[in-house]
Amino acid sequence: MSTTEQQSKSIATPIPFTSAELAEVAYDADGLVPAIVQDASDHAVLMLAWMNEDSLRRTLETGRTWFWSRSRKEYWCKGETSGDRQYVRSLSYDCDGDTLLIVVDQEGKGACHTGNRTCFYRSFGDPSADA
Amino acid sequence: MSTTEQQSKSIATPIPFTSAELAEVAYDADGLVPAIVQDASDHAVLMLAWMNEDSLRRTLETGRTWFWSRSRKEYWCKGETSGDRQYVRSLSYDCDGDTLLIVVDQEGKGACHTGNRTCFYRSFGDPSADA
Repeated sequence: MSTTEQQSKSIATPIPFTSAELAEVAYDADGLVPAIVQDASDHAVLMLAWMNEDSLRRTLETGRTWFWSRSRKEYWCKGETSGDRQYVRSLSYDCDGDTLLIVVDQEGKGACHTGNRTCFYRSFGDPSADA
Repeated sequence: MSTTEQQSKSIATPIPFTSAELAEVAYDADGLVPAIVQDASDHAVLMLAWMNEDSLRRTLETGRTWFWSRSRKEYWCKGETSGDRQYVRSLSYDCDGDTLLIVVDQEGKGACHTGNRTCFYRSFGDPSADA
């Protein structure tokens, strides 16, 4: 990839939204909704994390992925410490409004804290992937 | 697609698994884990549904997707009533073991009960997709 292409992929672009669209999202008893993150380049599913309404708003307004950490009970902006930032290109919600799908340009080595590009690097019945 | 190609895509193939792999999956307080379903043909994310340990075993053993309906509190085999069956080609688990990714050959018109191919047919800031 050329430097120019990499630079254009690393631009945060806010996603326009309406309050009617926001109202379509249904949160669980803990106020959370699962968000699937997919790579814009080859459609690989990179990870799943959780959002509350405020982190969804931050994501739309900033064009970066903001999640709610259920274990640490705090907001986190993906890549803010690792450098593996995600730039949002589209954000969809499903028929029931209870799952989000976020298509991103993934910066750096990937989405997973293990160093793998995707968090889904282990498959059933595939010993080579169990490393 | 030729008739032969369609027929080969509609064959249920059990996925081999070990008890060690099964033990890597972490269920939530309700005994459930979210399962992302992705189309093998073009990598579109089709839907997200929930599995418990028994529905995961059924899915691996039968090569068809079995979910747990949180609203109806019963097992359901995708496409058993609609005909829009899913044939499992791979099943992965993420770094924390708390999300599954299932790649399928999707039969019929698609995965969504609305008649759309994918459940994620509405995007923020895309009025054309809000129909």
